[in-house]
Amino acid sequence: MSDMREIGVGIIGTGFMGKAHAFAYRAVSGIFPGLPRPVLQAVADIDGAAAERAAGQLGFRNWRTDWRSLVEDPAIGIVSITTPNVMHREMALAAIAAGKHVHCEKPIAPDAGAARDMMMAAEAAGIVTQVGYNYIKNPMLKLARDMVAAGELGDITGFRGIHAEDYMADPETPYSWRCDPSGGGGAIADIGSHIVGMARFLLGPIAEVHADLETVVKSRPVAPGAAERRAVEVDDIARLTVRFARGCGGTIEANWAAIGRKMQLGFELAGTKGSLAYTQERLNELAFYRAGGDIRHGGFVRIESGPAHHPYGLFCVAPGHQLGFNDLKTIEVAEFLEAIAGGERRGPDFREAWEIQKVIDAAIASSRTRSWLRID
Amino acid sequence: MSDMREIGVGIIGTGFMGKAHAFAYRAVSGIFPGLPRPVLQAVADIDGAAAERAAGQLGFRNWRTDWRSLVEDPAIGIVSITTPNVMHREMALAAIAAGKHVHCEKPIAPDAGAARDMMMAAEAAGIVTQVGYNYIKNPMLKLARDMVAAGELGDITGFRGIHAEDYMADPETPYSWRCDPSGGGGAIADIGSHIVGMARFLLGPIAEVHADLETVVKSRPVAPGAAERRAVEVDDIARLTVRFARGCGGTIEANWAAIGRKMQLGFELAGTKGSLAYTQERLNELAFYRAGGDIRHGGFVRIESGPAHHPYGLFCVAPGHQLGFNDLKTIEVAEFLEAIAGGERRGPDFREAWEIQKVIDAAIASSRTRSWLRID
Amino acid sequence: MSDMREIGVGIIGTGFMGKAHAFAYRAVSGIFPGLPRPVLQAVADIDGAAAERAAGQLGFRNWRTDWRSLVEDPAIGIVSITTPNVMHREMALAAIAAGKHVHCEKPIAPDAGAARDMMMAAEAAGIVTQVGYNYIKNPMLKLARDMVAAGELGDITGFRGIHAEDYMADPETPYSWRCDPSGGGGAIADIGSHIVGMARFLLGPIAEVHADLETVVKSRPVAPGAAERRAVEVDDIARLTVRFARGCGGTIEANWAAIGRKMQLGFELAGTKGSLAYTQERLNELAFYRAGGDIRHGGFVRIESGPAHHPYGLFCVAPGHQLGFNDLKTIEVAEFLEAIAGGERRGPDFREAWEIQKVIDAAIASSRTRSWLRID
Amino acid sequence: MSDMREIGVGIIGTGFMGKAHAFAYRAVSGIFPGLPRPVLQAVADIDGAAAERAAGQLGFRNWRTDWRSLVEDPAIGIVSITTPNVMHREMALAAIAAGKHVHCEKPIAPDAGAARDMMMAAEAAGIVTQVGYNYIKNPMLKLARDMVAAGELGDITGFRGIHAEDYMADPETPYSWRCDPSGGGGAIADIGSHIVGMARFLLGPIAEVHADLETVVKSRPVAPGAAERRAVEVDDIARLTVRFARGCGGTIEANWAAIGRKMQLGFELAGTKGSLAYTQERLNELAFYRAGGDIRHGGFVRIESGPAHHPYGLFCVAPGHQLGFNDLKTIEVAEFLEAIAGGERRGPDFREAWEIQKVIDAAIASSRTRSWLRID
Repeated sequence: MSDMREIGVGIIGTGFMGKAHAFAYRAVSGIFPGLPRPVLQAVADIDGAAAERAAGQLGFRNWRTDWRSLVEDPAIGIVSITTPNVMHREMALAAIAAGKHVHCEKPIAPDAGAARDMMMAAEAAGIVTQVGYNYIKNPMLKLARDMVAAGELGDITGFRGIHAEDYMADPETPYSWRCDPSGGGGAIADIGSHIVGMARFLLGPIAEVHADLETVVKSRPVAPGAAERRAVEVDDIARLTVRFARGCGGTIEANWAAIGRKMQLGFELAGTKGSLAYTQERLNELAFYRAGGDIRHGGFVRIESGPAHHPYGLFCVAPGHQLGFNDLKTIEVAEFLEAIAGGERRGPDFREAWEIQKVIDAAIASSRTRSWLRID
Repeated sequence: MSDMREIGVGIIGTGFMGKAHAFAYRAVSGIFPGLPRPVLQAVADIDGAAAERAAGQLGFRNWRTDWRSLVEDPAIGIVSITTPNVMHREMALAAIAAGKHVHCEKPIAPDAGAARDMMMAAEAAGIVTQVGYNYIKNPMLKLARDMVAAGELGDITGFRGIHAEDYMADPETPYSWRCDPSGGGGAIADIGSHIVGMARFLLGPIAEVHADLETVVKSRPVAPGAAERRAVEVDDIARLTVRFARGCGGTIEANWAAIGRKMQLGFELAGTKGSLAYTQERLNELAFYRAGGDIRHGGFVRIESGPAHHPYGLFCVAPGHQLGFNDLKTIEVAEFLEAIAGGERRGPDFREAWEIQKVIDAAIASSRTRSWLRID
Repeated sequence: MSDMREIGVGIIGTGFMGKAHAFAYRAVSGIFPGLPRPVLQAVADIDGAAAERAAGQLGFRNWRTDWRSLVEDPAIGIVSITTPNVMHREMALAAIAAGKHVHCEKPIAPDAGAARDMMMAAEAAGIVTQVGYNYIKNPMLKLARDMVAAGELGDITGFRGIHAEDYMADPETPYSWRCDPSGGGGAIADIGSHIVGMARFLLGPIAEVHADLETVVKSRPVAPGAAERRAVEVDDIARLTVRFARGCGGTIEANWAAIGRKMQLGFELAGTKGSLAYTQERLNELAFYRAGGDIRHGGFVRIESGPAHHPYGLFCVAPGHQLGFNDLKTIEVAEFLEAIAGGERRGPDFREAWEIQKVIDAAIASSRTRSWLRID
Repeated sequence: MSDMREIGVGIIGTGFMGKAHAFAYRAVSGIFPGLPRPVLQAVADIDGAAAERAAGQLGFRNWRTDWRSLVEDPAIGIVSITTPNVMHREMALAAIAAGKHVHCEKPIAPDAGAARDMMMAAEAAGIVTQVGYNYIKNPMLKLARDMVAAGELGDITGFRGIHAEDYMADPETPYSWRCDPSGGGGAIADIGSHIVGMARFLLGPIAEVHADLETVVKSRPVAPGAAERRAVEVDDIARLTVRFARGCGGTIEANWAAIGRKMQLGFELAGTKGSLAYTQERLNELAFYRAGGDIRHGGFVRIESGPAHHPYGLFCVAPGHQLGFNDLKTIEVAEFLEAIAGGERRGPDFREAWEIQKVIDAAIASSRTRSWLRID
């Protein structure tokens, strides 16, 4: 790795993810040794008051309302984009043009075409990109992926993935950018991208998809409490049947109207030698069944996260103490910094985000044509 | 109800299900008051030694190798069919012709055409039929169904059903009648029929289906330990996307190659007012989330079975003591006897079994054509 | 074993346990091969209407209000006592005097002195006794006991046992024989005897006990809805610290005022080579941790009951289908019949019940003196 | 609150807890608005290389090997003590004498006498103290405490607390300061203090204690892999029966030899109106049973942490995303800073730590005398 010691970070957006990024950039050097130290240089928000407040609280050196000035600031080496999806492309292309490394929230674009533009620009510029699929940064997910890759589960025979929450279940939750079809879909884009990404992380490319998308809440108030309502065109629930390039099949569901579910992101996968089951509702656990053992004592093992599962041990030297959501974001940032410093590029980068977007686009198209679609 | 006091029972088959039926017919009158008392009259098996052994142990008055003589025995009022699927039709038609009430294991036939023949004959004869979809006899399932029917969950927005076990996961498990395509399918028929039936029990008719069936184990030994192998044509895994007639969608998976899963029969369903989650792995529990409550104290409630959930209280006056598999079979028998005595016909009867079979047939056809199919 | 083919059974009492016994005696020969076949000969209850109703429904050949005539009936070989605790002694001694084998519900007596009388009489007469500690008949409990005995857990270092329910939590639940101090205690006797028995089953004799007994509900209505209340002297909660003869320590809690708990009967035990955790709330599961394994994949294994855990396979040939409460009672009866036929005497017999009673008596005395007590 | 803007922090010790403190002081201002901003001023360790490495990685302005110079540094307003227990008293007294606010790891002293000295000095000096009982900073624990305090559970009838881990289970784990009786006990001090503190946090003072302490591993190697062994005198397992001043009873177990348990810190408590169950193994969940509801739909509710449970929402605006161990430490630091700035003093402070220590001392004494002991 290079001997870079510090790197300036500029974050665009001060919402849920803006704060999560700031937390992670602030925390990372106390946890991961040997990385460039991020300096919280600037934060941008079109709402100046929000930008100023965020700068004060999160500890940025300065703030602006103009994201372009942030992107071009020579003190900044990393641009972090946490705005709504439709704005990612323009911001990322500007940041890439300015030679910055880009950290972008997911999904990176409303469609695969835009994602491809971003990927092409990034690769041409040679900068490092990182996309916020933080759930796969969980050491338990790395363990799962490593077990699949090492053949510990044999030939994989099936995958069942789900990402269900209920944040859009209430018909009185107002229309927002998440409901705008120009943003590239509803649940399938917003959280489907997570579970599609997780499926790819574990099992590799998806070759073919069949989907059924459904809008449960047909209209929403134009604003909180408004009498006027606007028709919703994007999906609340997406049900995918998939074929992975490696040969096995699976199903994937994305659902933001699943009453009662706050973070049901998980999967069950089986192979000829074993099975895994995971849910983000208990993110420090992974259930593992090994075939062929002593059936009298056999069953699913509840593996608890601990120092045996890197990089858990950097957060805590004792097992069972548990990581939280913000810690996963910190791992994402650490891996991004490692790549920037010349180390391994673990992604997911813009290319991977483009691949995920192709699956989402194919799912939307499949649901319209009611037929299987190949993903090139 | 009629004042019938006793009814002779003849069981064909002495395997897993033959024994389960005998257990249930023996147990039922000690548990359920006021029903005709079953008399274990005769048992038939082509293997005479098995028949004799079963008669002795299970307490039948006599045994035979010829099932036809059992069907025609005037001392017998109920014929219970527990043989492989392909034999059901002939046996059931003979029993119906002899005026017997018929209790048949599931699926009742290899295809919807045969199931329809059986249903038509039964309805013409006016006899009572019962099909062995015992899992829906669980008081927790009745609770779930009643909650849906009473609107306690609002409008249902989605269903996710699964029946996964691993009894055919091992490639060395030999070829059997379960692998024979003339029997009407593999996992989709053998256990898929359970979860399809459960979906219908909870939410009513399925209007449309899309399926992807997959054979994981391509060949099996012709006999235990044999070197010679036979190609397998039926599915090990079936992945269905469905549309219910009531308007909502869902997914259903049947999988008999799911390493580690012994009885993962369950579902999650959500409505606009609440959600339910169930797995047969913990058959005395039902998880319920009620929307709109106090979020500080809210969450999924783990309902434990008890006397509040009829007919649990007939088995045990105290909650939490738990029912087992054989108890579910006993409830099935009790409801059959109640219908025979002139009470409510709760089924599932041959008509319902025919409806289930149509979904299975459509799933198989859908997978071949790779397209959605309507179920008439 | 002897070639006894049938044996007459007389049951005294028609409540919860009377019915459970009848169910088990009826079911047992369909499940367990080669045992004497129980014939439900007679049922007795001081309430003649209850006796007649039970006889009709449960299938007894006759009924009486006079338990003595039942005990002396030459057609009866087994007397089953399911009445309140204070009546057990007289009935059991009469049955023993009449040469009957005796099946008695727990606890067998209000104190160790009475239990000793019963044990002495039974041993002198040479008849077989069985006490209704049915929970330890669970195949998962046998597995646990066998693992301890085989040293699979190493030297046991600690035990934590609990039996908590809430059937007496409501202060409006009326005073009953369970509250009567002449019956030998409250929760410690009624359910404490189960967890004390389970502790002994797993780990052997308890050498020393320290207890703190507490009455939470100080008075109860003399009858349902009555304004008049009666002071309660027995314990609602008993907290024991114990020392086992094998050297390790432990704690045991009995609690019938544990709001929300329906059947929290369970334990956690650890040894130098492994640990077990169990709760009756999920009676078909046992959690097992094996020390010294691969920590990356290690953790507690959720063992599910199946044919590998005898006698599960007699109930069902497939794993995961689950036993229920009544099945445990059936296993108890099967083992009793096996002992009567000359096979192994697995108990718990009156001697074991006396040993359990000594622990209960010592706990009560310890709480009064607030000191450790040795159990001789 | 005062308008203090920044405060210098000096941490003594660079082990597990030193790092956790640094993480929390670094993270806190990005999460909690309006608090004085901690500046990581200095770190001290007798091992200079460790101190230098920690300073570099954790971002301290300077480092030393002499803790006294840190304590006296005028740039430092907070002294954080994360060294072995026996060193706390001297360091804390020096820091107090220098007018610093003191953050000290638990237990603060080897015995109640030393803890009392520290408490007296702190109160005389008027500085703010904070002790590292971080687990009670969990929003789920605050919820539990608030529910108890608000009477939502009625009169509390019993408490069952446990803190079990297995970090000292292996007999080859070497002798360390944790085994030194001058440090004030083994498991009862090291982790028993957590569960005693949690019991007090929830239910208030413990008036009386009976304990049985046991040493399972009788000797340990003097160093890793050493042949020479040293006798162990402190407890591996402590079993307490307690009486709370509020009137109810309970049990508490501390166990560092519980094979397989990594963080089994939890409790079950019942009142006349409801029950709670918690385990740190799933720290984002709390189970709640409300008495008197509809038994058909009733049961334990699994509450998941979310913004309804302050201060979760400062970490993440969406429920279900989960906090981790380091986040709990951050909340502890936030509350300490709030108190320093003149806000509410929520503790646990040195006085509370002294109260906890009195229970521990009483438990040790009770085990020696084998009798109940009152805590004044």
